[in-house]
Amino acid sequence: MVESAALRIGIAGLGTVGAGVVRLLTENGALLTQRAGRRIEITAVSARRRGVDRGVDLRPYAWHDDPQALAQDPNVDVVVELIGGDEGPALRLVETALGNGKSVVTANKALLAHHGSRLGRLARQRGADLAFEASVAGGIPVVKVLREGLVGNRISRISGILNGTCNYILSTMRDTGRAFDDVLADAQKLGYAEADPTLDIDGWDAAHKLAVLAGIAFGTPVDFDRVYVEGIRHISPLDIEYAEELGYRIKLLGTAVRTDRGIEQRVHPTMVLASEAIAQVDGVFNAVVIEGDHVGRVVLQGRGAGAGPTASAVVADLVDLAAGRGSPAFVESAEAGDGTVSMTEHDGPSYIRLMVRDQPGVIADIAAELRNERVSMEAMIQRRHQPDGAVPVVLTTHPSKEAALSRALERIGALDSVLEPPRMIRIEL
Amino acid sequence: MVESAALRIGIAGLGTVGAGVVRLLTENGALLTQRAGRRIEITAVSARRRGVDRGVDLRPYAWHDDPQALAQDPNVDVVVELIGGDEGPALRLVETALGNGKSVVTANKALLAHHGSRLGRLARQRGADLAFEASVAGGIPVVKVLREGLVGNRISRISGILNGTCNYILSTMRDTGRAFDDVLADAQKLGYAEADPTLDIDGWDAAHKLAVLAGIAFGTPVDFDRVYVEGIRHISPLDIEYAEELGYRIKLLGTAVRTDRGIEQRVHPTMVLASEAIAQVDGVFNAVVIEGDHVGRVVLQGRGAGAGPTASAVVADLVDLAAGRGSPAFVESAEAGDGTVSMTEHDGPSYIRLMVRDQPGVIADIAAELRNERVSMEAMIQRRHQPDGAVPVVLTTHPSKEAALSRALERIGALDSVLEPPRMIRIEL
Repeated sequence: MVESAALRIGIAGLGTVGAGVVRLLTENGALLTQRAGRRIEITAVSARRRGVDRGVDLRPYAWHDDPQALAQDPNVDVVVELIGGDEGPALRLVETALGNGKSVVTANKALLAHHGSRLGRLARQRGADLAFEASVAGGIPVVKVLREGLVGNRISRISGILNGTCNYILSTMRDTGRAFDDVLADAQKLGYAEADPTLDIDGWDAAHKLAVLAGIAFGTPVDFDRVYVEGIRHISPLDIEYAEELGYRIKLLGTAVRTDRGIEQRVHPTMVLASEAIAQVDGVFNAVVIEGDHVGRVVLQGRGAGAGPTASAVVADLVDLAAGRGSPAFVESAEAGDGTVSMTEHDGPSYIRLMVRDQPGVIADIAAELRNERVSMEAMIQRRHQPDGAVPVVLTTHPSKEAALSRALERIGALDSVLEPPRMIRIEL
Repeated sequence: MVESAALRIGIAGLGTVGAGVVRLLTENGALLTQRAGRRIEITAVSARRRGVDRGVDLRPYAWHDDPQALAQDPNVDVVVELIGGDEGPALRLVETALGNGKSVVTANKALLAHHGSRLGRLARQRGADLAFEASVAGGIPVVKVLREGLVGNRISRISGILNGTCNYILSTMRDTGRAFDDVLADAQKLGYAEADPTLDIDGWDAAHKLAVLAGIAFGTPVDFDRVYVEGIRHISPLDIEYAEELGYRIKLLGTAVRTDRGIEQRVHPTMVLASEAIAQVDGVFNAVVIEGDHVGRVVLQGRGAGAGPTASAVVADLVDLAAGRGSPAFVESAEAGDGTVSMTEHDGPSYIRLMVRDQPGVIADIAAELRNERVSMEAMIQRRHQPDGAVPVVLTTHPSKEAALSRALERIGALDSVLEPPRMIRIEL
């Protein structure tokens, strides 16, 4: 058999993931050549600092201080973008590479969430591929499963634990009963959370990933601004305790769902039934649930971050390119209509926790405000008197319009007998 | 854009899955054309009886009484084989189609387990593809995940619940405490088990699927005869009860694992920790756990059978072929060596249940036999006296050689004080 020419790749960004890709390609090189039908050869690399020990030998590869030079290097067929960030060098690199007809493999969810549809069109115009398995859910091949494995299905819902940091914090809060700030501080010490944790705990990272998944699943334009985002800072041990009592677990879920009003895209703390597979995914693991019209429900679990899992996803894309199995980045669908509906139109059940003064008539006042907005209660738990005089009242609602519930909660929060702003956590059934 | 010519398919076998494929292609036709980049068009069908109402309109397609005619039909580019069986018409159809250079999509695990390697070579020689996503785990795209999504990894283990009938029976036995025969009879009434349930409950169906998965994961020749097979007939409510007490669940698992002695391929009832994701997959669902050297552990769950999920998998293969994304059926790997090791070399922990006469010295006799074979006990449970005088003694062992344990159990079974043949269930950690 005549050996095909090697696929020559240039890697920009040599953090833990970049080094992981070098390591994987080196360790499993022979196996990959056999599986891909041709060699995948690193020819060039680029990073900000050259002298750093990254635990891998970079001497065989051409070095570029400027990532743009990688996109121009005639010995590079495919650019692997692992710089990160939704603007600046990463965006310039990808635009230049695609513009030159070089395919790009990226793990950059922020970049895709903001520019994915445009970059996908650019790739197609230039006959290049834009591949991004590593951008969502680390080692779980959810992009491939959604786009190819379940291609026969009209997707009705995709929902997932897309951020390991948040899942670790919520799992640990549940296991230990400790408060959010406390667990976050520990997670930072352990390296599970960044010094600036905003991107993770405020839901932005999960929202970037959800925007990408929604684009694939529903054929809507990838548009980060259409994702409703709410993080986990306000989750208290009390809410976790009540969730248990009600048979739920609290997870930060990213959910994209087809409703008769349009596609909802939302990231927020979510109560899911404790018996569901996704409720049992703890720690830094990710999981994705996909519902299709013929396949039913498919659940995928695995490591959502880290050098090995992310490198596994990057290399899967590289092998697809080497084997000529590229797929269009996003196929926009006419039937997706004008896409996403606003969160105010969301219609679902909720958990509500109020801290009230223990006095006659409180419950009646609360119930009246809910009834005025046609929000119907499903269950209520009123607990023992608290030392400081504030009594928690917890209730769950039947499915109700987000806008109506918000109005009711605003008025409930203004009641004299309600001592703290109401807490609301959406329930997903 | 110039529209590409349609991919013309012929479907042989119009049972529930065949009808499901027709339905899916009809319902989601426009979506599929968009996603595949060209139309997928049924041109011909074949089945034994023409006049049956299958709930789908077959009038637009050419009808062939003989499936062989489908493989010769010049208007058929791809043959979808849904006849079933590892010999006879299915085998002849696939050989003829591949021989004529037509690609084949099949859901036939028995055929693949017996002839997969040879048929894969035939396909390659003739420039055709042999695709079989639907042959394993129904709607779960495990073939694609293993072959493409995790292509960068050296796989160390793949293990799964591959037979929904067995999982339904074991789940129901656990939930209800009822005996195997009783639950099987109900499953037959409900249509979850066949009138002749042998293929399912004796583990053959799972073993067919495991042989296919092992071939993909390890690059060993697909060879059904190398799979150790043990079914679930002998699982008693007592064993299920003890499993719970010890923190395990009993699942029929198919496991292919790389050991330093070679690749083990085995299907048998297995005790898995109740906290593992796979332990919590109940009823007719399937699940597969894949372990790779870079990705770590990935778990996939979904419906393992039925018209919709199986059609979803068949259509995924068709879209891959339409889009020019075919993969070689099996890539045999030089490093796989001479493949599978015998079950006697298996080395792992076990659960053992003995029914003994409640008299002094019994435990000492049992312990002595185990010690003679260097099988070391991990835990022992001795329960209350039973009405008939037989007392269950349950023990778990540290990892020990299958051959040694078998010898010990044979001698233990021959002890006067041991009233029934010992029951052994392997534990997977």
